[in-house]
Amino acid sequence: MKGILAGMRVVEASAFVAAPLGGMTLAQLGAEVIRIDNIGGGLDYRRWPVTETNQSLFWNGLNKAKKSITINFRDPKGSEIAQQLITAPGKDSGFLLTNFPAKGWLNYNELKQHREDLIQLTIQGDRHGGSAVDYTVNPAIGLPFLTGPRDSISPCNHVLPAWDLVTGQMAALGILAAERNRYRTGQGQHIKLALEDAALAAMGHLGFIAEAQLGTERERYGNDLFGAFGRDFTTADDVRVMVVGLTLKQWRALCRATETLAAMEELSTSLNIDLNLEGERFKARDHIAEIISQWISQHSITQLQTAFDREGVCWSRYRTIKDLVEQEESCSTHNPMFSQIEQPGIGRYLAAGSPWDFSGIERLPATPAPRLGEHTDEILANILGFDSPTIGKLHDQGIIAGPEA
Amino acid sequence: MKGILAGMRVVEASAFVAAPLGGMTLAQLGAEVIRIDNIGGGLDYRRWPVTETNQSLFWNGLNKAKKSITINFRDPKGSEIAQQLITAPGKDSGFLLTNFPAKGWLNYNELKQHREDLIQLTIQGDRHGGSAVDYTVNPAIGLPFLTGPRDSISPCNHVLPAWDLVTGQMAALGILAAERNRYRTGQGQHIKLALEDAALAAMGHLGFIAEAQLGTERERYGNDLFGAFGRDFTTADDVRVMVVGLTLKQWRALCRATETLAAMEELSTSLNIDLNLEGERFKARDHIAEIISQWISQHSITQLQTAFDREGVCWSRYRTIKDLVEQEESCSTHNPMFSQIEQPGIGRYLAAGSPWDFSGIERLPATPAPRLGEHTDEILANILGFDSPTIGKLHDQGIIAGPEA
Repeated sequence: MKGILAGMRVVEASAFVAAPLGGMTLAQLGAEVIRIDNIGGGLDYRRWPVTETNQSLFWNGLNKAKKSITINFRDPKGSEIAQQLITAPGKDSGFLLTNFPAKGWLNYNELKQHREDLIQLTIQGDRHGGSAVDYTVNPAIGLPFLTGPRDSISPCNHVLPAWDLVTGQMAALGILAAERNRYRTGQGQHIKLALEDAALAAMGHLGFIAEAQLGTERERYGNDLFGAFGRDFTTADDVRVMVVGLTLKQWRALCRATETLAAMEELSTSLNIDLNLEGERFKARDHIAEIISQWISQHSITQLQTAFDREGVCWSRYRTIKDLVEQEESCSTHNPMFSQIEQPGIGRYLAAGSPWDFSGIERLPATPAPRLGEHTDEILANILGFDSPTIGKLHDQGIIAGPEA
Repeated sequence: MKGILAGMRVVEASAFVAAPLGGMTLAQLGAEVIRIDNIGGGLDYRRWPVTETNQSLFWNGLNKAKKSITINFRDPKGSEIAQQLITAPGKDSGFLLTNFPAKGWLNYNELKQHREDLIQLTIQGDRHGGSAVDYTVNPAIGLPFLTGPRDSISPCNHVLPAWDLVTGQMAALGILAAERNRYRTGQGQHIKLALEDAALAAMGHLGFIAEAQLGTERERYGNDLFGAFGRDFTTADDVRVMVVGLTLKQWRALCRATETLAAMEELSTSLNIDLNLEGERFKARDHIAEIISQWISQHSITQLQTAFDREGVCWSRYRTIKDLVEQEESCSTHNPMFSQIEQPGIGRYLAAGSPWDFSGIERLPATPAPRLGEHTDEILANILGFDSPTIGKLHDQGIIAGPEA
C-alpha cells in the first residue's frame, strides 16, 4: 500500500473535526499520520454518534488510517517524549498538526529548538486564539438568517459543520504548501489557521460581504437557489425533488423535459423579460415554479426520471441518509471510494477513502481507525529507538499506554 | 510580492465555485494562476450577486489574484493556443485545473502528448462525469431532512454551497500532492475529483453513514447541537445568541456564567444522570435549556457578554451579514486577512486574502480579480513567445481578445 504522499510522516495532536480531518486526509493519501492522545483518549473520544456500547462513530470516522500513541503528556517525561516524536529527524517528517493551544509541549519556539525546520500548523478558533467552534462561527457570520423557510423569522442553523470540513482541507493544504517550500529552501514554518478566518474568507469570496457592503441585504429564499432558477418540487407520487436551471443549457433541458417551452415563452412575453438570463429567471422564479410544478405534480418519480435524464436536466431526489445508504449505488462498494471495514469494537460498516482518483497511483482502500494506543510501542521503538526495557518502564510509570485489553 | 507558492504556474479552465476557488486558493498563496475564458466570459461571468451595472460580485470574488486570458476555443487555432499554454515547459508549470469535461482541448491523453508530466485535476459532478452541482448533491445525501425547525416535515436546503467550498480546497490540495510526487519522480497525473464523492466521504467521516447503516435514523434537532449541549437563546433585550457546552470545560463555564450550578445539580439528581457526560447533556437538553433560558432571558446582551467572557463560555451572537460587515472587527481591515480593494467596474470593497498565516512568509494582501482578457497579450508574449504581429493577427481574426474598453 502506498499512495501519493507515501513516505511523509505527520504528528497530530488534536480533537473534534478540523484537525483530525486534516490529518486523516493526509493519511488516506498515504502519509504516516500519528495521532498523539492522552491516556484514555482526548476530548472527542466519546463524541456522538456513539454505538450502544459507547464507541464513537465520529471518532472512528475521523481517525481512519492513522496510528495511535497514548502518552500522559501532563507528566514532564511524557511531554518530552511527545516533543521528541514531533521533532524526530527525517527529510519527510517534522510536521505537527494541532488544534490545541500552541503552548506547553506544543510551543513552536520551543519545538523549533529541537528541529529548526519544523512545520507546525495550528488551527485556532479565531485569529487571536480565542474559543470558537463551527457552531458559534456560523451564527456570527450571518448564514442562519438566510437559511430555513421563507416566512421564518428565527435564525436557522444548518447541521453540517461546513467550516470544520473546509478548515480540515485547508490544514492539509497548508502543510503541503509549507512542505513544498521547505523542500526547496529548508525553511520551517508555524502556520496559524483560524476557523473564523476560513469562514470569513469564504463569505467574502462568494460575494456575500461585498453585497452587504455595497448596500444590499439578501433575503431568505427558502429552498430557492439564489440568482438563477432552482428549487424543490413534489411529484404526483409524493417524492420530493430538487431541480436546477442555473446555466442556460440546464434551463433549456428543464423546459424541454417538463414540456413547458411554450408556457415559458408566454411568461417571457407577459412579463416582458428574457428568461435566457439567469437573473431574470430568479426574479420570475415564483411564476416559473408554478408552471413547472403543474408538470411535476402530475407525473410520477419514474416518469420524471425518464424525462429528466433523457433531456439532461440537472436534478436530484431528496433522500434521507437511510435511503442513501440503502438505495444509492454511489454510497456502496460499487463506488471505488468506499470499502466495508471491520472497525474493532464496533463492527462492519461502509467507510470512505480519499475522493481523489489519481491516474498514476492506485487509490488506497479505506482502513479502520486504530484502537487508542495501538501503536504506542511500535512508534517508540521504530521512530525513537527505545528498547523494550525502556518502553516497559514507561508503561509501569503510567507515562505511556497501549490499547485497552 | 511572493507567497509560499511563488514560482508555480497553473492554468485554469473553469466556472462557478469549486474550480475557481481551488485556483484562487493557489493564486492567493503566490502561484501564478491563469484563467482561460472564452471571449465574452464563461458560464459564471454574470452569476449573482451582481451590481446595478450587472457586474458579478461572485465572479470577481472567486477570481481574485488571477490572470485572465480570453480565447475563442471553439476555433481550432484558439484551442491549440490554449493547449500550448497548458503544456508550456517549465519545472514549476504544467498544471491544469478544470471543471469542464476532460474532452476536446481538455483531453488529458491528448494534452499529455505535448507534456508527459502534465498534472491535470478535473472536478466532476459525480464520478461518472454526470451532471451534479452543490444544490443537487446536498438533497441527495440527506442533510435537508435534518436541517430546519424541529416540527418541520419538509426538507430544508442550507444556503451555503459547502460541498463546493470543500471541493475547491480539495482541488488545490490534490494538485499540491501530485506536484510533490512529480517533483520527486517526474510522474504526471490526471486526478479526477467528484463533488458527489467529496460530499459522500465527509458524510462517512462524520459518522452519518455508519450511524444509518447500524440502524439509527437521526432526527431533526432544529438549532440544537447534536450529541452534547448547544442551542440558541434570546436575551432580555431580544438579542439571539448561540451557546455551546460541547466539552466539559465549556459546560462548566456555561453553568458558572449563568449561575446555574446548583440547578444543574438538582436536575442531575432528579433525572438520575451525570451531566458531566456530553451524551447525557444531549438527552437532557430541553431541561437544561429551560434552566439556562431563565437566566439569559433576564439578562441583557451586555450583561451576558460580561459574564460569558469572564467565565470563558463558548458562545456567539447571531448577526446578519450587514451587522457582520458594519460591526465586527474580524470582518474589517483590522483583520490582516482583509484588504480594501478597488475592483475595476465595481468600486471599493473589503476582500479576503488567504486564511493561512505563515510565520516565515509575509501574507499577501488581497488583490482584485482581473478584467476579462486583461492579460491576454502579456501571457501570449511572455509564456508562448508570440511576437506583436502574431498577437495582432489573432486579435483581428477574433481568436483572442483583450479587455473590453
